[in-house]
Amino acid sequence: MEIELDQLLADLQSLDHSDPSSLRASLDQIQSRVENLANVARSGPVRRPKVECQDMSSEVVDSNPYSRLMALQRMGIVENYERIRDFSIAIVGAGGVGSVAAEMLTRCGIGRLLLYDYDKVELANMNRLFFRPDQVGMTKTDAAVQTLSDINPDVVLESYTLNITTVDGFETFVSSLNNKSFCPSKEGTGVDLVLSCVDNYEARMAVNQACNELSQTWLESGVSEDAVSGHIQLLIPGETACFACAPPLVVASGIDERTLKREGVCAASLPTTMGVVAGLLVQNTLKFLLGFGQVSPYLGYNSLKDFFPTMQMKSNPQCSNVACLKRQEEYILAEPARDAAAKAKLEAEPQSVEEGPLHEDNEWNISVVDDNEPEGVDTKSSDVLPEGFTREFPSADESPSLDTSEAPVTDDDDLDALQKQLEALNSA
Amino acid sequence: MEIELDQLLADLQSLDHSDPSSLRASLDQIQSRVENLANVARSGPVRRPKVECQDMSSEVVDSNPYSRLMALQRMGIVENYERIRDFSIAIVGAGGVGSVAAEMLTRCGIGRLLLYDYDKVELANMNRLFFRPDQVGMTKTDAAVQTLSDINPDVVLESYTLNITTVDGFETFVSSLNNKSFCPSKEGTGVDLVLSCVDNYEARMAVNQACNELSQTWLESGVSEDAVSGHIQLLIPGETACFACAPPLVVASGIDERTLKREGVCAASLPTTMGVVAGLLVQNTLKFLLGFGQVSPYLGYNSLKDFFPTMQMKSNPQCSNVACLKRQEEYILAEPARDAAAKAKLEAEPQSVEEGPLHEDNEWNISVVDDNEPEGVDTKSSDVLPEGFTREFPSADESPSLDTSEAPVTDDDDLDALQKQLEALNSA
Repeated sequence: MEIELDQLLADLQSLDHSDPSSLRASLDQIQSRVENLANVARSGPVRRPKVECQDMSSEVVDSNPYSRLMALQRMGIVENYERIRDFSIAIVGAGGVGSVAAEMLTRCGIGRLLLYDYDKVELANMNRLFFRPDQVGMTKTDAAVQTLSDINPDVVLESYTLNITTVDGFETFVSSLNNKSFCPSKEGTGVDLVLSCVDNYEARMAVNQACNELSQTWLESGVSEDAVSGHIQLLIPGETACFACAPPLVVASGIDERTLKREGVCAASLPTTMGVVAGLLVQNTLKFLLGFGQVSPYLGYNSLKDFFPTMQMKSNPQCSNVACLKRQEEYILAEPARDAAAKAKLEAEPQSVEEGPLHEDNEWNISVVDDNEPEGVDTKSSDVLPEGFTREFPSADESPSLDTSEAPVTDDDDLDALQKQLEALNSA
Repeated sequence: MEIELDQLLADLQSLDHSDPSSLRASLDQIQSRVENLANVARSGPVRRPKVECQDMSSEVVDSNPYSRLMALQRMGIVENYERIRDFSIAIVGAGGVGSVAAEMLTRCGIGRLLLYDYDKVELANMNRLFFRPDQVGMTKTDAAVQTLSDINPDVVLESYTLNITTVDGFETFVSSLNNKSFCPSKEGTGVDLVLSCVDNYEARMAVNQACNELSQTWLESGVSEDAVSGHIQLLIPGETACFACAPPLVVASGIDERTLKREGVCAASLPTTMGVVAGLLVQNTLKFLLGFGQVSPYLGYNSLKDFFPTMQMKSNPQCSNVACLKRQEEYILAEPARDAAAKAKLEAEPQSVEEGPLHEDNEWNISVVDDNEPEGVDTKSSDVLPEGFTREFPSADESPSLDTSEAPVTDDDDLDALQKQLEALNSA
């Protein structure tokens, strides 16, 4: 386009004004060239129109951006997919994990996204997904809003170009989480979940502090400096370990991690590891929001061996974080109410069905037909698939190695022992 | 831009030719508007210049797109990252998995990518990563080349808009895999690995046929129709099971899968599941190409429980695929040579070091210093990290649950039994 416009400019500058008829002919030609350029510009990037809230259609047509998501409902995975539009998610850090998590949630049609980052896009970020070379020099939040609003104009995007580890930044962070204008009737804060996608412990401690103060559930994520492993972790203030309950050694020992960084040395990163971690993070976000499957308390990813360790960590009664101790107290006080609610829920659920016919009478003469399925093929599964669909692999329930995927569980004793070691280290 | 050009066109059309001096003034004004438009067009998306082969720098500056990848070498993960530029990868299917896999490999700086797809971009694809709403109506291969060449102009992109399950499409597919112009000295075909990212068994069988005929190693991937699970699988003709050795029921029973698709019903899909599968697929591709970590023979992903089953399948001597049987024969014939090579390699490697001092004398008076690390913290690891870096979690070698992540192994007996059942089913 710029080449055509430059040529047009040159021709305008060299117009011969001495001969009116030749000037007229030249201008007619210029006019038709501008017409062509306008047509070319019109065919460039255009946004699709917004889809109104009441119109999240499950109709299977190629022009419906939500058809493959609404299909989750018809296939029995999610009870009510449209609820996704009611949720607000805060993503702290728009780097290799946060930006991809934001894109996934945007494409899933999340209601509102809050993005926090203070950094700018560099060419050195191009080995991760999401940012484009033409965005180099823009703030990551501006570049993210540009890309995400083009992808899905239905999502409400709020971006905060700030550093949450500064006093002002932390204050704005907390007050933005508390803003309930998107969903005034919501209990607690204005967001449903905070996703931590930062690359340093100082920022993680800031997210931890804010979430402990606000009693806000969050999902933490991280990728190792050698780029080949990562993790996600669910943190529920008062219930699970907070980030200060069992901190990494660099935090517990009070070392300023900036002293660990050396001139001319950078951490490695890969789009694969970060893509997997972002995918696991947002999948667990969807499970948490829409109430399907099981949300993992901790899930690691060791890509060298394709090994995925899991564990659970309870809160630490000797935690150094005051807000965490306050949440732990509230959690213990609420125990009788929790137990009563769990009991009531259990009683309200239908009893498990015994072997035998569900209905004594059979006025439609319905009988069980043997499909001639060969022996050994899994026919015992309780999750019924729609007709014509085959299973990817046996469900985890029936797999001989399921129980092992949930080991090892770190119990209280281990945590206590670890805490004592860390305290000894700090006081040394 | 189109609004400005439309206005310019209108002003050109309404020029007053009766008064030369007013015409001149109007044209001067139009000239300066075109100048502005040319400047705006110039500031739009620009590609970064190509990085020459000899210049894949590991310098840690923000303007180096490869600095975070070259860091893999310095951190001891990869021996020679620059080799990535010598490799060719074929990706069959540019959908939710294939397009993301292509973007990951492009950002990693792969040498050459071959893309195959016959489909067009639809708004209904917007719930997966990669394609943008402004690309709706373009072929997936054209849209992919547009995006990928903007991201990394160093990658050689070849796109094939064709259906590999047609006679002509299959022929072009096979001959493009055989084309060795990118790296004439390469043994075997012209590509290092084929990634199958298709969504139907007919296309998988076509990839299987081509790879068996060419003795081409490939990685298969898939996502379930309910969008919440997926898998990747390594297929080495003659050595591992091919796709026909233990086919899914829908293939073994000879059903035309198109009869299973019903009007107005579409499969569900999620950007999360597809992003995780693409990440696992490309991570194993990088391990295969650059020789680090372990390539998984089969890795499943059950997202409802964050469960990752693994298994191994040997080739089936009763396989229905003639080319597979030929490769199996060759594999058996090459066994003595393989054993000899493995023995020679083992003998060439240094013997494992016994406990005790490496050197009897100690002229520099080097002694082992106790770093005061607390008990229980992993200090036995043989993978040494650079100073100042902490580990994400204990290495899989030391975890009590490692061995279970590699179970269950499907042995020959199971496969024989399964094959007999399938044969009985087909002959019934």
